[in-house]
Amino acid sequence: MRAIDVHTHFVPADFPRYLGKATSPRWPTMVCSGASHIMEIGGEKFRAIQPASWDGALRVTQMAGQRIEQQVVSPMPELLSYWLDVDDALSLGGYINDKLQELHESAPNKFLCLGTVPLQDPKEAVRVLQALLKRPGFRGVEIGTHVNGVPIGDPRFNEFFAAAQEFNASIFVHALHPIGGERLVGPAVLQAAVGYPCEMAFAISSLLTGGVIAQYPNLRICCSHGGGAFASVLPRLEWIWSKSEPLQKAMNASPRAAARSIYYDDLVYDGATLRHLLGVFGEDRIVIGTDYPFIIHDPNPLGSIEALDVSDHVKAALLHGNAKRFLDIKDPN
Amino acid sequence: MRAIDVHTHFVPADFPRYLGKATSPRWPTMVCSGASHIMEIGGEKFRAIQPASWDGALRVTQMAGQRIEQQVVSPMPELLSYWLDVDDALSLGGYINDKLQELHESAPNKFLCLGTVPLQDPKEAVRVLQALLKRPGFRGVEIGTHVNGVPIGDPRFNEFFAAAQEFNASIFVHALHPIGGERLVGPAVLQAAVGYPCEMAFAISSLLTGGVIAQYPNLRICCSHGGGAFASVLPRLEWIWSKSEPLQKAMNASPRAAARSIYYDDLVYDGATLRHLLGVFGEDRIVIGTDYPFIIHDPNPLGSIEALDVSDHVKAALLHGNAKRFLDIKDPN
Repeated sequence: MRAIDVHTHFVPADFPRYLGKATSPRWPTMVCSGASHIMEIGGEKFRAIQPASWDGALRVTQMAGQRIEQQVVSPMPELLSYWLDVDDALSLGGYINDKLQELHESAPNKFLCLGTVPLQDPKEAVRVLQALLKRPGFRGVEIGTHVNGVPIGDPRFNEFFAAAQEFNASIFVHALHPIGGERLVGPAVLQAAVGYPCEMAFAISSLLTGGVIAQYPNLRICCSHGGGAFASVLPRLEWIWSKSEPLQKAMNASPRAAARSIYYDDLVYDGATLRHLLGVFGEDRIVIGTDYPFIIHDPNPLGSIEALDVSDHVKAALLHGNAKRFLDIKDPN
Repeated sequence: MRAIDVHTHFVPADFPRYLGKATSPRWPTMVCSGASHIMEIGGEKFRAIQPASWDGALRVTQMAGQRIEQQVVSPMPELLSYWLDVDDALSLGGYINDKLQELHESAPNKFLCLGTVPLQDPKEAVRVLQALLKRPGFRGVEIGTHVNGVPIGDPRFNEFFAAAQEFNASIFVHALHPIGGERLVGPAVLQAAVGYPCEMAFAISSLLTGGVIAQYPNLRICCSHGGGAFASVLPRLEWIWSKSEPLQKAMNASPRAAARSIYYDDLVYDGATLRHLLGVFGEDRIVIGTDYPFIIHDPNPLGSIEALDVSDHVKAALLHGNAKRFLDIKDPN
């Protein structure tokens, strides 16, 4: 049965030289030595990068091992670069979108793309989005959970979401520079382990309480990491909403109803949690997400779905049907 | 069947005048006008307070309506007052502990107490804890998720947790001044709705990754609000732990195993989420918590337990057996 992985990432093999005006921009470079590729940002080591991040042929081989037929490919979130001046962001983002398109064109049946837009300037983001959707392979864009600290549910981004609805774009939300670093005790990887899920819960809540979901009912949003901690937050948000006039004023419909209009990937690393998500958000809302090719990616994405005690109809929805609706793919199988 | 509510709060009917040396301390006062009681902190309105917050007879009547036989009563978290100088904290905390004892003595079979200690000075906190446990009605203390921004899993609090284990104290962890306020879009109540569960997830993670759970295996900790978002965070933390040497160095045992040595209340406002918690943390780990008498309290705490498809043995554990273990209550029924 066809399986679509909605959550995979891309890093280009190298980056153009910085040609802008900033004196110390947070601009990426790839430092290669033998088989090692280290990505630096603003001259500081960010992370070792695997060739599967850019190598389409290698990806296709590894997809076969995972029984994934099609990957939706989005930039490594750090590349969203909301901290750059808009001219620099347009330059870097344009390069990344070009490289994403090349990946798609290397195997059009295997790779669909979610590009990047300079959300630090919502008007420019709208312009780039409109142009991007006319290019082969692009179904929409990936965005972060916040833009330089401003949550995506803030009204300043309404024009972007209005355009995404109008242009029929798919929007994939990924955690970025999470809250709560000051509350962690231990190694830096805890930012990804604990910070990301909570960051995601705040971002989704802001989409509900800021009115994005209510104002753009045809907008298609998919949240990464199973919505992070949002499944745990939602019943409490629902209860407090039922008791709080100010919150009812901020959002008319119940949080639970609004939450069920969003898609969520299944990257929760646990069968019981996946079953719980199906109940909380709906069997028509969950799509495959693996975080391929990063080190913490789920190597057996079909295993957790096959282990579910659900009908073949629901399994088909989880494997590809929900993803096709999120991506507005109309092909027959 | 006997039911013990581990999560109820207390506010005294009034507060002593401030007699310390600070020029503008964040000291509480109660401003009464007719039936209205407004608590102020440092001269600013904090919240309207209901008489059930201090009135034992009223509490006993309302407990009968909830079918709760025994309440464990802890201070409203804002009263923990970690921001006060230690002398002021000793004065305010001493007053609150005295008033809690009076509540217990008004109906010793109905009220058990979790007091407050000045955790901004761990040595003083140890001294106060030791004395408190010799007083009638006290089983331990409530603590916040952090002390002026320092998470409770930070090693500076190890001497407190060592003493809590040595003195056989029950420790109830409650969210306080949560992370992520800058990521909320909407009314202030979202701090409680979204911030509290995520704050709790960070605090529990810090107890695991900072080594508290591993170092004090006989320590009895109970976390409020079902551990907040921690149930959603745990499988991801477990997966990343299995891949990350630095995290394995920080914590030897698996996060999942460590999480199952903590108690969690069942204040999640949702049957499906409660069932999920039983699977994640264990049927021997969940206790009743209502947030009584605050406005968002669960008015029907037994309803969600009775609705579970579990054995009478498990129901008894949820109603009182687990609470008795957390509180080290040895009476026969």
